[in-house]
Amino acid sequence: MKKVNLKEKLSKFSDHWNPRIVGELNGQQVKLAKLKGEFVWHKHDEEDELFYVLKGRLRMMYRDREETIEEGEFIIVPRGVEHKPVAEKEVSVMLFEPASTLNTGNTQNERTREDLDRI
Amino acid sequence: MKKVNLKEKLSKFSDHWNPRIVGELNGQQVKLAKLKGEFVWHKHDEEDELFYVLKGRLRMMYRDREETIEEGEFIIVPRGVEHKPVAEKEVSVMLFEPASTLNTGNTQNERTREDLDRI
Repeated sequence: MKKVNLKEKLSKFSDHWNPRIVGELNGQQVKLAKLKGEFVWHKHDEEDELFYVLKGRLRMMYRDREETIEEGEFIIVPRGVEHKPVAEKEVSVMLFEPASTLNTGNTQNERTREDLDRI
Repeated sequence: MKKVNLKEKLSKFSDHWNPRIVGELNGQQVKLAKLKGEFVWHKHDEEDELFYVLKGRLRMMYRDREETIEEGEFIIVPRGVEHKPVAEKEVSVMLFEPASTLNTGNTQNERTREDLDRI
């Protein structure tokens, strides 16, 4: 029940593509992540995923189009939809998604992060 | 799958204590609300509720203490915990909670809002 200050939490890490858990509710988790460069194509078979841009600009690629999400905007990627986040410069995002969500979705590779830290 | 700009959505309404739905995922809803003045004491028996302050300062009262949530901060009120939001000046918040959540929780009164608008 302690409040969470996002800037303070973001100051605690600097690596990219390694989400941290900052809140849990109703089986969902709130995560913070810093993104830079291109991620891998993946989808989540069972989970819808919300990306809220706190700082910077996120390019979300789909197989048939792309969208650019600016500060103060969010996007919901529905389950089953292949996507690839791209950050030309560093982006800070807040994620809302089920606790079961794996960052690389249906793929497992060197970008996969499990047992995420709670900060 | 269209992105949501929070400032643009907030510009679409001005009344207080009347949340609007701006996103849905995994049985949860993302809502925006403007708050001013005192709300009613209530609790949600089955739902945890996240308040993220977009603009202004929110005072969250519990029966035994209170907390002030500033811009860029969020708080999660766990299910079963009585709370009363108070906004001395207008506050804009983003809420994240199950689709089943009623704004007045276990109470029903003139502040209750049902069939919320999607904007």
